[in-house]
Amino acid sequence: MVHVTTQIPRATDEDIARLGQFTAATIHEAQGRRGALSSTIKPIDRNTSFVGTAFTVVCAPRDNLMLQIAIHFAQPGDVLLVSAGGFPEAGMFGDVLGNAAQAKGIAAVVTDSGVRDTQELRELGLPVFSGSVSIKGTVKETLGHINQPLVFGDEVIYPGDVVKGDADGVVVVRREEVAEVARLSAARDANEADLIRRYRAGGTTIELCNLEEVLRIKGLTTDLDVSVA
Amino acid sequence: MVHVTTQIPRATDEDIARLGQFTAATIHEAQGRRGALSSTIKPIDRNTSFVGTAFTVVCAPRDNLMLQIAIHFAQPGDVLLVSAGGFPEAGMFGDVLGNAAQAKGIAAVVTDSGVRDTQELRELGLPVFSGSVSIKGTVKETLGHINQPLVFGDEVIYPGDVVKGDADGVVVVRREEVAEVARLSAARDANEADLIRRYRAGGTTIELCNLEEVLRIKGLTTDLDVSVA
Amino acid sequence: MVHVTTQIPRATDEDIARLGQFTAATIHEAQGRRGALSSTIKPIDRNTSFVGTAFTVVCAPRDNLMLQIAIHFAQPGDVLLVSAGGFPEAGMFGDVLGNAAQAKGIAAVVTDSGVRDTQELRELGLPVFSGSVSIKGTVKETLGHINQPLVFGDEVIYPGDVVKGDADGVVVVRREEVAEVARLSAARDANEADLIRRYRAGGTTIELCNLEEVLRIKGLTTDLDVSVA
Amino acid sequence: MVHVTTQIPRATDEDIARLGQFTAATIHEAQGRRGALSSTIKPIDRNTSFVGTAFTVVCAPRDNLMLQIAIHFAQPGDVLLVSAGGFPEAGMFGDVLGNAAQAKGIAAVVTDSGVRDTQELRELGLPVFSGSVSIKGTVKETLGHINQPLVFGDEVIYPGDVVKGDADGVVVVRREEVAEVARLSAARDANEADLIRRYRAGGTTIELCNLEEVLRIKGLTTDLDVSVA
Amino acid sequence: MVHVTTQIPRATDEDIARLGQFTAATIHEAQGRRGALSSTIKPIDRNTSFVGTAFTVVCAPRDNLMLQIAIHFAQPGDVLLVSAGGFPEAGMFGDVLGNAAQAKGIAAVVTDSGVRDTQELRELGLPVFSGSVSIKGTVKETLGHINQPLVFGDEVIYPGDVVKGDADGVVVVRREEVAEVARLSAARDANEADLIRRYRAGGTTIELCNLEEVLRIKGLTTDLDVSVA
Amino acid sequence: MVHVTTQIPRATDEDIARLGQFTAATIHEAQGRRGALSSTIKPIDRNTSFVGTAFTVVCAPRDNLMLQIAIHFAQPGDVLLVSAGGFPEAGMFGDVLGNAAQAKGIAAVVTDSGVRDTQELRELGLPVFSGSVSIKGTVKETLGHINQPLVFGDEVIYPGDVVKGDADGVVVVRREEVAEVARLSAARDANEADLIRRYRAGGTTIELCNLEEVLRIKGLTTDLDVSVA
Repeated sequence: MVHVTTQIPRATDEDIARLGQFTAATIHEAQGRRGALSSTIKPIDRNTSFVGTAFTVVCAPRDNLMLQIAIHFAQPGDVLLVSAGGFPEAGMFGDVLGNAAQAKGIAAVVTDSGVRDTQELRELGLPVFSGSVSIKGTVKETLGHINQPLVFGDEVIYPGDVVKGDADGVVVVRREEVAEVARLSAARDANEADLIRRYRAGGTTIELCNLEEVLRIKGLTTDLDVSVA
Repeated sequence: MVHVTTQIPRATDEDIARLGQFTAATIHEAQGRRGALSSTIKPIDRNTSFVGTAFTVVCAPRDNLMLQIAIHFAQPGDVLLVSAGGFPEAGMFGDVLGNAAQAKGIAAVVTDSGVRDTQELRELGLPVFSGSVSIKGTVKETLGHINQPLVFGDEVIYPGDVVKGDADGVVVVRREEVAEVARLSAARDANEADLIRRYRAGGTTIELCNLEEVLRIKGLTTDLDVSVA
Repeated sequence: MVHVTTQIPRATDEDIARLGQFTAATIHEAQGRRGALSSTIKPIDRNTSFVGTAFTVVCAPRDNLMLQIAIHFAQPGDVLLVSAGGFPEAGMFGDVLGNAAQAKGIAAVVTDSGVRDTQELRELGLPVFSGSVSIKGTVKETLGHINQPLVFGDEVIYPGDVVKGDADGVVVVRREEVAEVARLSAARDANEADLIRRYRAGGTTIELCNLEEVLRIKGLTTDLDVSVA
Repeated sequence: MVHVTTQIPRATDEDIARLGQFTAATIHEAQGRRGALSSTIKPIDRNTSFVGTAFTVVCAPRDNLMLQIAIHFAQPGDVLLVSAGGFPEAGMFGDVLGNAAQAKGIAAVVTDSGVRDTQELRELGLPVFSGSVSIKGTVKETLGHINQPLVFGDEVIYPGDVVKGDADGVVVVRREEVAEVARLSAARDANEADLIRRYRAGGTTIELCNLEEVLRIKGLTTDLDVSVA
Repeated sequence: MVHVTTQIPRATDEDIARLGQFTAATIHEAQGRRGALSSTIKPIDRNTSFVGTAFTVVCAPRDNLMLQIAIHFAQPGDVLLVSAGGFPEAGMFGDVLGNAAQAKGIAAVVTDSGVRDTQELRELGLPVFSGSVSIKGTVKETLGHINQPLVFGDEVIYPGDVVKGDADGVVVVRREEVAEVARLSAARDANEADLIRRYRAGGTTIELCNLEEVLRIKGLTTDLDVSVA
Repeated sequence: MVHVTTQIPRATDEDIARLGQFTAATIHEAQGRRGALSSTIKPIDRNTSFVGTAFTVVCAPRDNLMLQIAIHFAQPGDVLLVSAGGFPEAGMFGDVLGNAAQAKGIAAVVTDSGVRDTQELRELGLPVFSGSVSIKGTVKETLGHINQPLVFGDEVIYPGDVVKGDADGVVVVRREEVAEVARLSAARDANEADLIRRYRAGGTTIELCNLEEVLRIKGLTTDLDVSVA
């Protein structure tokens, strides 16, 4: 017997939207280099991005029964994170379920397995991230889990976490840290904008990355001078 | 000594064109989840698609002698399926042979090895699908096979089969089944269009995928109710 | 202690520009099928290309200290070739360093590891080639090498070599051979243009690839005739 | 600044020893098909096995600083689980540290990266499991984590969990569940011994796996009869 | 509904035994370099070998239902060839089913997925070949196929074919060709024994491989002489 | 036309033998962490080791023509390093050529492609290292290079370099550095023996690896004390 949890805690829409302003890379750095999923999970359209609440799904490889159930129970704004053993030769999700998901207001579908109907999904505009693109059909036979904590893309995901995805990949933020991480992301963005301005004005990496002291301690020398400093 | 078969049976142009109206994923499902090649073989331009007759070619890895011969003997509408051991570090096909193939009316070139001159090939508009993109040149030394049955992308291909390729990948249909698979594909498309309409009108996966009975038998329960039904 | 060489020999701007007119595949063939890097190193934007002087950098995996130093010492027109053990799960380079590199006039950044901020880098227009795209941050702890000869993408690169990259990948040319390889590339381009013209006019591969004699010696026969000749 | 936790909770020696009587596969099944690490982590000697307390270590790729520190703080019976980004081209651990670990009474070393001096380690008799075998040396530059919860081999590991490894791979059991899982493992072993006895006496899979009902519901038929039942 | 074929044609025991005297490599060469399965399928004990009749099984990934059924219907001397999508993270077969298979007189079990209980299976002496070793348990949910022609290890297998496996891997021979391939294998073995004798007596590769003429035509020269001849 | 260099410089037998006393890992460290080939190249028998002179061979993938020629020209004590594009699905070398090589006194054969007849080769006692084991036969069609500098296993090899291989893998030493690297290896072995003795006597990693100062600078603290020191 498998018991499905459909009720999960969610961050506020305001906090989620605030976090969503930042790129996945910025969020990853702002929270201390944590939460980035494996680089093998990528968008089928590099121009899409999403932010939303983690709704976790565990399917058997080449079996999308639990994904169908998950679409039924997910709420608008949820992101379906669908683990299927990283199996590449299956199209777990295509345009029919894509329309079902979009009609429910689901924010994105992310899987470590494959998807199909990618042209139709790109036209639909639903953000879809996957480990592969595969034509191959699935069965609906095996129960799995919904809204259990999950190792996905080498990171632990709890239902209710907030996930952001863009061209670079996907990052996860603990629900209770969303507001703080958004604040830190804004600070990081400001700092990076300042750095970019200074680089464009002629600043150098040794100066702006504070490398002089580091290199002196480590003993780097160059053919220009005894020390890089 | 190697003997090349140049005369292969072909489906009618009408049947091939009829099949070509459907996506590779639809055809795969319509014929009972059969015939999809490995997900590692992908178009160099996701906006292209093709349909045509399988003209099979076996090359040695990093050797395109048999591909050159195949272009000589192929007919307009043929799709060259070029097995070369899946070797990624070779550009088996580029813009010169691309022009040769296009001038002959070849419908597409598909290989489990690499291709090059991808920008020129995209401009040319010839559909090219491959396992990799590699600059590296080939030799013309080793004989192989033309129009022998072939294991290619984990599927068996017979010369004269019909192949369809698009953004999702490539599917093969037995020549004698083309008309029937086209009919089944149309039926599937109609059914999927209906499903999409019903999802957009608010239908749910448990209802439209007939999951209620399945889940009752398997014993799934939720925190909403004793049973998902 | 690590000693950094900042002064490297460079080909003339004229020679570099002359070589840059040709595609990476053409250059590879023109110099005798040498110098093409592994097919796993690819542009983040297939519409970009570059040519420039090899400025070699060895980083520890997931550590971009030496890349920051390299940006400091590189000259306008240099291409940073950044080896980091081929480690996929690191974003060695993003939009801040991208702006730093562009402000210095660096021609391109190429790494066997990952990069991030790919949308921003595409907008910036700096050519970036990598083995992966990863969000994950790096440290700045470990010394490496700058402008040492390098095995990179299965090829040996010497500082001062000239590298060309485009949609197909990257090729390296020895500095002293640049003018000659440019000349050979032009000859090859002319020859290929001629071949394409003849194919479009109805020429066949057996004729234009001079296969008749080859096939007669190897003993290929067809169902059309005793010999393909 | 990095803070190292050296004090972790540990199961009793009795419970650990009791669990250690069972194979990794049995334990995995007994606790409900949970806890098996990725199949890519394997023993360097298939005749070794271990059981012990998880002492978790996060190193930078190709950097074994934290592993050296971990050996200092680990207790007899601890198993060092050393994450290093799964980087294959590094020998994180060899015979010198192997002797250090053995002298401390460390039960085993498990890493997703590489090890070296494998002949010496086999002679030493210390169980070592790794993702690869690599000669390549490491640096000691970058701080990481000790005894933080860890995603390792696609499973979450908490410091103090109990891990068992043998020829098939490695499984992790939550500390508080060790006694219960040992009990369930014993029951499973007894059941399997009974099954083996019945198979050797001529029992059939359809009978002993209770497949008759399953196949009837699923509708399997054979050329022997209308139904397999 | 799935229909299982249990009755397959089989070569005679004499022919199978005669073929089994030769190594998999010899058989592959003797029948014209055909029939060798992918190098990724390897024995769990390099000292075992087998020969027998192909009994083909298609399972869903991480699901061994059809394998259990196959053991029921297989005959003594059969080799179970179990396709499961090449999924590495599953132990499709262990010591319980190993005893069941051995009690039935099954000659070997070969899968492109994983197995477990490898120490017990080695002790049992049943030849087992697999793509991986994995602890992870399977479900018994999804129907597949038994004794349908199969693409397995990049080769087509028909039920009733004869398969030989040893330390180097696995080769398949068509049932109707077994006697002839055994004859050709014996001839090849005799020829190789003669070659080995001549090499040990001081023969050279250029002489014994008849390279002189080849090299003269291809134009190889050395620093010893104008031509290698 | 291809020109083969058969005459290469060689280190003295004494220097080669002196180097051969040390493990590949020791040599790699002793010469400053250089020269270790990729971890994907491994012995078919972990109990073998070799030392000898690099005799480099470039074959086309699945083509062993140049290997046959190389056996002809190699001298006793030479190690054949056979690059074949890293193609896994070919048995480049088996027991016939194994006998030919052994009769010539060749010290070892190392390839980035596959070998076969592994049981016979193990019995023969010739050290063989490869990227894979494959049954599949090769052709003898394409010229390559002999005794050209080579990128092999991600390292540059010059003909006449000295290579050492053992259970951990293979390392290359420049010919002119052999005596010095042997001397440094002996010093390293002595130092490691001393370290092992001190560890077995109760020494700790923080003490023997001189970590105290490192950790103080980096700011590591523990739950035992403010600083690890």
